Formats: sequence, structure tokens, C-alpha cells
Amino acid sequence: MTKLERARGTRDFAAGEALLRQQTVNTLRNVFELYGYNPLETPVLERFDTLASKYAGGAEILKETFTLKDQGDRELALRYDLTVPMCRFIATNPNLKIPFKRYQIGSVFRDGPLKIGRYREFAQCDVDIVGVTSMAADAEMIEIAQEVFRRLRLNAILKVNSRKILNGIIALAGITPDKAEKTILTLDKLEKTGRQAVEKELAESGTPAAAIKKLMALVTVDGTNNEKLARLGKELKDEGKEGIAEISEMLGNIQNAKNVEFDPSLARGLAYYTGTVFEAFLNEQNLTEIKSAIAAGGRYDKMIGNFVGNGRNYPAVGISFGLDIIQDALGMLKTGPKKSAASVYVIPVKVNAKKAVSELRKAGINTDVDMNDRDIRKNLEYASSMGISFVAIIGERELSDNKITLRDLRSGEERLLSIEEAIAFLKPTQAS
Amino acid sequence: MTKLERARGTRDFAAGEALLRQQTVNTLRNVFELYGYNPLETPVLERFDTLASKYAGGAEILKETFTLKDQGDRELALRYDLTVPMCRFIATNPNLKIPFKRYQIGSVFRDGPLKIGRYREFAQCDVDIVGVTSMAADAEMIEIAQEVFRRLRLNAILKVNSRKILNGIIALAGITPDKAEKTILTLDKLEKTGRQAVEKELAESGTPAAAIKKLMALVTVDGTNNEKLARLGKELKDEGKEGIAEISEMLGNIQNAKNVEFDPSLARGLAYYTGTVFEAFLNEQNLTEIKSAIAAGGRYDKMIGNFVGNGRNYPAVGISFGLDIIQDALGMLKTGPKKSAASVYVIPVKVNAKKAVSELRKAGINTDVDMNDRDIRKNLEYASSMGISFVAIIGERELSDNKITLRDLRSGEERLLSIEEAIAFLKPTQAS
Repeated sequence: MTKLERARGTRDFAAGEALLRQQTVNTLRNVFELYGYNPLETPVLERFDTLASKYAGGAEILKETFTLKDQGDRELALRYDLTVPMCRFIATNPNLKIPFKRYQIGSVFRDGPLKIGRYREFAQCDVDIVGVTSMAADAEMIEIAQEVFRRLRLNAILKVNSRKILNGIIALAGITPDKAEKTILTLDKLEKTGRQAVEKELAESGTPAAAIKKLMALVTVDGTNNEKLARLGKELKDEGKEGIAEISEMLGNIQNAKNVEFDPSLARGLAYYTGTVFEAFLNEQNLTEIKSAIAAGGRYDKMIGNFVGNGRNYPAVGISFGLDIIQDALGMLKTGPKKSAASVYVIPVKVNAKKAVSELRKAGINTDVDMNDRDIRKNLEYASSMGISFVAIIGERELSDNKITLRDLRSGEERLLSIEEAIAFLKPTQAS
Repeated sequence: MTKLERARGTRDFAAGEALLRQQTVNTLRNVFELYGYNPLETPVLERFDTLASKYAGGAEILKETFTLKDQGDRELALRYDLTVPMCRFIATNPNLKIPFKRYQIGSVFRDGPLKIGRYREFAQCDVDIVGVTSMAADAEMIEIAQEVFRRLRLNAILKVNSRKILNGIIALAGITPDKAEKTILTLDKLEKTGRQAVEKELAESGTPAAAIKKLMALVTVDGTNNEKLARLGKELKDEGKEGIAEISEMLGNIQNAKNVEFDPSLARGLAYYTGTVFEAFLNEQNLTEIKSAIAAGGRYDKMIGNFVGNGRNYPAVGISFGLDIIQDALGMLKTGPKKSAASVYVIPVKVNAKKAVSELRKAGINTDVDMNDRDIRKNLEYASSMGISFVAIIGERELSDNKITLRDLRSGEERLLSIEEAIAFLKPTQAS
């Protein structure tokens, strides 16, 4: 007999967890559509060539790509993100209207080492706008993130920066352009490994001590957003100055920038960013163990054009939400998430309760019902273990009076109600 | 330069198509939850061993299974259906409460020959109840399908039969038990290939002419459901009689069986069915080209127990909806499906229209806005090509009066409205 188990690095979501996941996805969809983004669904399977394109995700990610072949011996792969499939979609739809505003929510696959909180199959939720250079688009990404966290009731801080500012800072610190990318990748670890480790790594890669000192002073400048922008703005030149102007314009475009923090040390690991970068972190006192970003993104004005290779420019900015980490956070925070789709469980006691069940469902009340003729005690245990809040007991007396006995499983309180009264009572509990 | 294209047998869904798909999925989810079924999400990746289990999908489907390996050289596969992953979930969760009512909507993968309407990555929408032997559960599957088609406004016929009746008919026709399974697989082609072809295939596999005649007469008995049940009930014995009683009980359990047709020739290809079987077909005059079933299912009381192998019984009944074929049908039928998530496209004419855009979105109106400072003509063309119904033009005059000029792109009609009036006007068009 084969031992039945899940593939390593994969997860199942059932009942309450799946309901919470679905509710979170609905919130994301609703906000994305509120801002006028259309859904896109691309397949899990892509041609290996597409994902291995030199302008796609790069060598590191390609090492973690699951590959397979079809019957015709064609090389295929499982998508490792949703950005490269979007680029492929743009390339295969030359008549696509620009701006192209799309969102996509789906599973991606990476055959990487297994660590806590890392999975081989996980979900990404991306929203991107292609074809707009105005900072209004970058501001829109921040507002979308604010609205998502507001609806999910998550306190979050949105950190923003610009690659142009980082490049300006690196130049001003006297670091040569050939070391700029390496310096950015090292700075990206500041939040995780701390200042000392970053300074050590910079020194080890041959950055002079004076340059490190200048660099660290500039990226850790303090004050309000405006103070920091003004201080750096006085020193930075050319590209750096441009970045300061862009971030100022973006912040000016955001209705309420209270939880938006300009952080000139924010780097983001990916090489393809060309302008703004953002990362969102939880700001919940009870959730200090979640340190990773719950959303991240930025502007990448060159990547799609390089990838598509038709000579056209595709300026783009986007943000990606981490469904798994957001779900983990919501699961830890919420005191009583819905555990069951059913709002009420009907227990027929030696009668046919079909009519009441139909009426509850016709009124839109999610209704489960015993079909195994179990006794009341067993049925109560079942409903309780399923996390259903109410049971409706229907015996001969209830049936002849066209009523139900509604019991609140948390308080134990019982009331005899007409079907209409029960519907009116249950209706508000249904909303989720 | 790599030629960018989709993997063979896969599809993209964008804008209107993706919105329709999502709306259909929401309808299915809502109906499944109305009947008290909880969502389950299992991974796309399963261990090859699991999918190759002798009680899983069988040799035919295993030939079409995409296989791959992880870095640890473990043999994996992409799920080819959602039933086997559900069985694996039950096996890996020994404390699961029974009855287990779950639905799952997701992509499945089959590396089969490419034909029109056949894809290598397609969606299944399954709803199943595990742990109930009562025909009330089978009736619930029919009612779920009726409610789904009612909400999707699709006319459909639900054909029902029982494997027990088929076995009884086969015995009564004098066909030996060793030929029963082959006979059922041949009968399954009746709708597609016609009576002559079926009779020919039966004769070729050695069924005597008299048996074929008797068999065909029994499976094509005519009359109302009750007449057919009565006629067969008089002749059938043992298992066949039991099947007649079950179908009668199931039909009696359905509130409105108007579009439910008892068809004793209905066979269903899969070997694992043990009782009721059902298939739903479109009954739309304008859609006669779609001949395949749009949903199908039945009772399989042995399969999960065999698969899990822990000595327990897991009677089960379920139905699966074909999302792709339903989407095709809806796309062909609907005169004007929503083409864009956005209900209104805001055109700022040399002004900052941020405030109006924010107010529209705060009121829940899905709003897109030009961020490229294009002229009115280009913006109108864009909104029209995107399938957005309304544009809101905001120039200096509108801005100073706190108004917008709302144009209906279908009729060309324009009206000058306050933001509140525009919201009240657009709100009903938003519902979908």
C-alpha cells in the first residue's frame, strides 16, 4: 500500500482556513477592480524558453524552476511568478490597448530549499499598470495597498524609496557605478541583518571606509518624510535629484500619506527596478514575529520592453501582495474567524425537514442539514466541531407549527421561531 | 530572440472573459456554500505515487499525467482531477469529521491529444459529500445543479440513472456479469455515436443478438419518469429493483423535478460509480453546437475506502461542473457581458481630477482614470475599446462647480451631474 502524503513544500487549506483565504482574495479583487484593474488568468504551464528568457526572472530563480515535458517532448515549466507570464501575454497580444491595467491572483512554484514559512507552491496577488510614466500611477499602487489593509483591518507601514535616489546616494558616497548593483543588494539586507553586517559586507566587497560611512549616513538620514527629502535633495544631483522630485510628487498624490514612510535605505532585491520601490510591513503590536514584507513592488520601465523585444517602450509599475503571509497574520489576529460556510445546521428529529431547509436556503442562509438520522446529541457535537454557530431543531411539534427551535451553540440559548423570524435573525450573522 | 508563445493546450483569460469566468466561479461558490459545503484547496503538485494508486483515476488517465521531479529527486505529478486529491486529503487527515462536505474549484492537467475544445490545463468545479448513504444527498446534488443553472440563466436538462438499474438491465438481457463493465462503457457512447454504432460494438464484443435487442429495448423505454420507473420496476430484480427504488426516492426528494429526466441508458464512463449517475446538458435552442455534458457526477461508495485503505467505509456522492464549457456557453448566449472591471473612465481635461476619482471609489464605483494627459478624443477611443460604458469628463468648469460631465458611450447622451448624482446614477450599473 502506498503511503499517502502531500508533496513536500505544499499545503492544503480546508474549511475555516480556506474561507479566510477566499475572503482575503475577494477583498484584493474588489479593491483592484475598484481602481479599474481587470483580471488576467494565465496558465500554470509555460514554455521553458519563456521563463528562461534572459530578461525574465534571472539565473537564481531559474535554478528553482520546476521543469517538465509534454507528450510532444516540448520543454515546459511551472510559472515561478506572475510578472513573466504577463510579459508573455503582452508579447502574444500585439493589439493590446495601452495602458494595460491588470491584476492576477494565482499559485506560483519554486523548487527551493524548504524552510519554515517557505513553500514550493504559494500564491501571489499582483496588480500592475503598463504604459504610464506619471507618478500618479505609483501613488495609485500605494493607495491600493492602503485600501487593501484598511479593508483587512491590518495596521501596516508602507516604506517607499526610489532606485534613482539610491543610485544618487551611491554616486555621492563615491562608490563606482560598477559596484552600484552589488551595493543595492547588500543594502537590501539592512532590515534583516542589521547595520553592522551590512557595513562588513560592503567592506569585504572592497568599498572604502569613507564611502561606507557616507553611504550609511545618507541612507539613515532622519526626520519627517519632507525633512528627509529636503536634506537629501540639497546634496543629491542628476538622477538622485530626479528621484527626490518623483518621490515628492508621488507623496503629494496620495490622499493620506500618514502610514507612508520615505526610507532611503529601502533597496528591494530584484535587479529590474528603475524608479520607485515600496514594501509594506505589519505594524501590529501582537504580531511582531512577522518581520517579512506583506506586499512589495516598484517601477520597472525597461523590463517588459526588453522582454517583448518589439522596440516599443512599456513603462510599468506594480505591487504584489503575499497572500500566505497575510493569511497567517489574519489567522493570528482575528479572535473568531468563520470556521464553516454554513450559518445554521438543521437537525430533523424523526421528521422530514426539507421544507424548512429549502426556505432558509431560498432566503440566502447557508444551511447544512443532517441526512444520517443521527440523534440530537451526536448532531450537536458535529455542528459544534464544525464551528457552525446555530442549530435549528425541527421535531413534530415544530413541524406542525411551521417553526424551528434555534439554538445558539456558543451561549446555549434557545428560542422557538417561525421560519421568517429565524431568517431575520440569521441573516446578519451570514454576512462575512 | 526566443519566440514567445503559450504552451500548447493552454489558454489565457483576460478582461471580459476573465470577469465572466470569475463571476461564474462566484455563482458556483455561493450555491455550494448555500448548501453548507466548505471550500477545500489542495495543491496542484501531488506525489506521483498518490495519483498512480490503483484506486485512483486508472491507467488511461495516468498515461496523460504530467510528471516531474523536485530537487530531492522525488517523483511528482500535476493533479489530473480534484477527486484523487480529496481522497488523499481524507487519508492524511484521519480526524476529519464525517460527513465531510467540500467543494473545490481549480485547474487540472492532462497531457492528452489536442482537439478542439480539449485543453491540457482546464478547470474543474467539484462538490461532494462523503459519509451519507441516504438518497437525500443524491437529491441535493441535483438541486445544487438546478440552482447553479438557474442563477447562470442556463436552460439545462438533468439526466439521471443508477448503475444498479444498468446492472439489473444487463442481467435481465442475459449478458454475463464479466461483460457488464464493457457493456456499460459501450452504452456510454449512445448519445455521441448513436444506436447503430452501439449495437455494432456490442455485437463485435460477442454479445448475442437477442441480448442486444433486449438491452436496447430496456434502456430506451419511453414515457414519463414515473412510467419508465414503473415499467422497468415490473421487470427488474434484486439490484435492479433496488436502483429503481433509489431513483424513485431521489426524485421524490427533489422539490421541482421538471427538468430532471430518468434515462436508463445513461452510463457515465468511469468505473468507480456504484449507484446514481447524472449528467446535465444544455437545452438552449441557440446553442445546439454544444453537445457535451456541462456537469456530471454520481455515487461512488467504494472508491474512497479502497483508496484510503484504513478499513472504514466512505460512501460518497458528488457532481462536477465544467467551467470552460459553461463559460463558452455563457459567452455565446449573453448579449452584452461586462467587458471591463471599470464602470466609469474619468477624463481630466487639464485639471487634477483626483478628488472626484476618490469620491467615486469611496462610494464603491469601480473607476479608471487617464494618467497620461491624453486628449479627449484619444481617451474616448480608449474607454470605448476597453468596453467601459461611461466616461466622466472633468474640465475647469466641472471642477469649479464640483460636477462631472457623464457621457454614456453607447447612446452618446451627456449630462452634467454633481458627484452625488453621478454616484446614484452609476451605482445600479455596477452590480454584476
